[in-house]
Amino acid sequence: MNAEIIAVGSELLLGQIVNTNAQFLSKQLANIGVNVYYHTVVGDNPERLKGALEIAESRADLIILTGGLGPTKDDLTKETIASHLGKKLVHDEVALSSIEQYFQTINRVMTDNNRKQALVLEGAAVLPNDHGMAPGMVVTVNERSYMLLPGPPKELEPMFSQYGEKEILKLQPINDKIVSRVLRFFGIGESMLETEIDDLIDGQQNPTIAPLAADGEVTLRLTAKAKNEELAHQLIDKTEQQILARVGEYFYGYDSTSLMNELFQELDARNLTIACAESLTGGLFQQEITSISGAGDVFKGGVVCYATEVKKHVLNVKKETTETYGAVSAACALELAENVRSLIQADIGISFTGVAGPAKQEGKPVGMVFIGISIKGREPKYEQLQLAGTREGIRLRTIKHGCHFLLNSLKE
Amino acid sequence: MNAEIIAVGSELLLGQIVNTNAQFLSKQLANIGVNVYYHTVVGDNPERLKGALEIAESRADLIILTGGLGPTKDDLTKETIASHLGKKLVHDEVALSSIEQYFQTINRVMTDNNRKQALVLEGAAVLPNDHGMAPGMVVTVNERSYMLLPGPPKELEPMFSQYGEKEILKLQPINDKIVSRVLRFFGIGESMLETEIDDLIDGQQNPTIAPLAADGEVTLRLTAKAKNEELAHQLIDKTEQQILARVGEYFYGYDSTSLMNELFQELDARNLTIACAESLTGGLFQQEITSISGAGDVFKGGVVCYATEVKKHVLNVKKETTETYGAVSAACALELAENVRSLIQADIGISFTGVAGPAKQEGKPVGMVFIGISIKGREPKYEQLQLAGTREGIRLRTIKHGCHFLLNSLKE
Repeated sequence: MNAEIIAVGSELLLGQIVNTNAQFLSKQLANIGVNVYYHTVVGDNPERLKGALEIAESRADLIILTGGLGPTKDDLTKETIASHLGKKLVHDEVALSSIEQYFQTINRVMTDNNRKQALVLEGAAVLPNDHGMAPGMVVTVNERSYMLLPGPPKELEPMFSQYGEKEILKLQPINDKIVSRVLRFFGIGESMLETEIDDLIDGQQNPTIAPLAADGEVTLRLTAKAKNEELAHQLIDKTEQQILARVGEYFYGYDSTSLMNELFQELDARNLTIACAESLTGGLFQQEITSISGAGDVFKGGVVCYATEVKKHVLNVKKETTETYGAVSAACALELAENVRSLIQADIGISFTGVAGPAKQEGKPVGMVFIGISIKGREPKYEQLQLAGTREGIRLRTIKHGCHFLLNSLKE
Repeated sequence: MNAEIIAVGSELLLGQIVNTNAQFLSKQLANIGVNVYYHTVVGDNPERLKGALEIAESRADLIILTGGLGPTKDDLTKETIASHLGKKLVHDEVALSSIEQYFQTINRVMTDNNRKQALVLEGAAVLPNDHGMAPGMVVTVNERSYMLLPGPPKELEPMFSQYGEKEILKLQPINDKIVSRVLRFFGIGESMLETEIDDLIDGQQNPTIAPLAADGEVTLRLTAKAKNEELAHQLIDKTEQQILARVGEYFYGYDSTSLMNELFQELDARNLTIACAESLTGGLFQQEITSISGAGDVFKGGVVCYATEVKKHVLNVKKETTETYGAVSAACALELAENVRSLIQADIGISFTGVAGPAKQEGKPVGMVFIGISIKGREPKYEQLQLAGTREGIRLRTIKHGCHFLLNSLKE
């Protein structure tokens, strides 16, 4: 079964928002063995939407449309599909009463344009919207299926996972299982990684090997096809072993994990708590670790010591240190790591100080970064980096280097 | 001039990455009056890319292709376009020497597959890559132009802004100017906003009015077309006045500003400094304010008091407060705001405590949030919220409410 995803919305074509729905759906469809060959984005314009539908019908068995189901006048997806397929729109009573209920819950008056959201294509299977108002739907005409989903990701994602995927599994004939596994690497560039495993990529068939670089990391996606999942996993295992024999030192985890998540798991497994002092990263490390549910088991708290006086007064960095070496220095990073650990009473302290840019600081270049680590009962240590890129990029990669440095230190 | 953006990359169709390039380019093209009617995503497959090109040629004057210019074997865009247009690929000496230089700068060995990146279409204008290796290019064949840009956003974005846009302005005949302005609202839902200005939207022609809801905010994009920019702005001004006469109390800013940016500007204009104590938001407020370049002028630092003991020991919240009311309480928020202000020696303290979920805390429901504000010389005050949604959504909207609360308090 081949699918095409059509996102409807002029706000996408104007660049007001990014098409995360296509990413989410592609990932979910890959997991259940549905090939996605095209994404299309088209505006809130019935004629152009019809044109895009006709092209999609020439190349896909399943067409998923996202957006344009809302209450406002530019929401035209249902009406356009109905006219294209020669189907009527009818009120769905369940959806209508759920919309009325929704307004009661959030304690707002239900305006009349919301009733339009309860219209569905005649004969369609209705997908309930547990996080908003407009229901989704699936209808099959001439052996081709059309799934309509709401635009807001916080409505679309749970709707698809809970109800949409099941409808697709009903449509799809039984065939080979497709299994994917992503290997994640840090500290090696994409072209170097590919050169190291060049012959493996050349010889690839099943599994296929697809490299991708993003945000200072490189990933390899291995995708295998087999009669059942177990066999597919065996094929992937074998290729993975060959790859890791060559570049295993840069490997840190699988699939959607992150360096922060690996660090969290490691700290949790070792029953260690951590505190953090952040200067150039301004809270990014702490925000990332606390975005993990259950963070409180390992993360206690920390200080954002953006101004030099906060480094001195709150974290007791010595006057001599800032005067002799500056706030951007190995000495300052070491004191910050040690002192935040004792202030917060944690097992580990980690610190970040450096120049995020756009301007130099203390005569030091943009991208100069020091990371300090203090582990109870061990000598504190630091890592010095020279990063390139934008302010945001430098901050992000600083955090990744910090996670990597601490992970390696723990495993020593 | 009508444009279509074709992103090439199987990683997009597998959902490994999201197509932010289409968003970026759409925004830039709208600014220079180029209509974008379609985005297409196609995999690393020459046949399907040719098919997508043919469709784009039937509906666009300018085709922008992103991705597939890199060193690896699945990078096939240039080769496919060359064969489709019947053009040769030639080595660009400037690009080749810049690639060699790049490897020297980052101190890595240049592998042989990198030479492929210096190939360009014969007769094309070459767009230098200041942040990576593969150059971009523009070529015009039969009055239709093709622009090829690299996939990584950190290369594509500066390349387009610096060199690509100029090439498009050379191609485009002089015509009407299109001006857009976005009005941003906080504290009102999309359907309610639309109901309030229903007749204005019905009567819209020039400017058009497009509502959009995202992350707890609603925006209205007003787009006008006129002989020159000044006239277009006058048309927008008039409609804006009509809108703000009805819903002005929820309006907070224009275009790509954010509540945090508005707060930063307000603090900067008043010469006030701020400190922050964060529990459920774990550093998000501080990370956001420090992502603004120049943040140091207003933001001094703060404490992430995730564990209750950090609230007590570092920020001196009274034992009676946590015992009687709990850490998630108005009393705790007030003490945190006051005490972080005095610890950091700032003019203003802001605090966030609450339940981000997924589980209840102290018997309090997920989404219960208290925000404390302490302004030097004034009585401290707090705001209590009951938010819905995911852990990430609750944290994000907590920060927005905090910015909004403080902005209003400053203006009182």
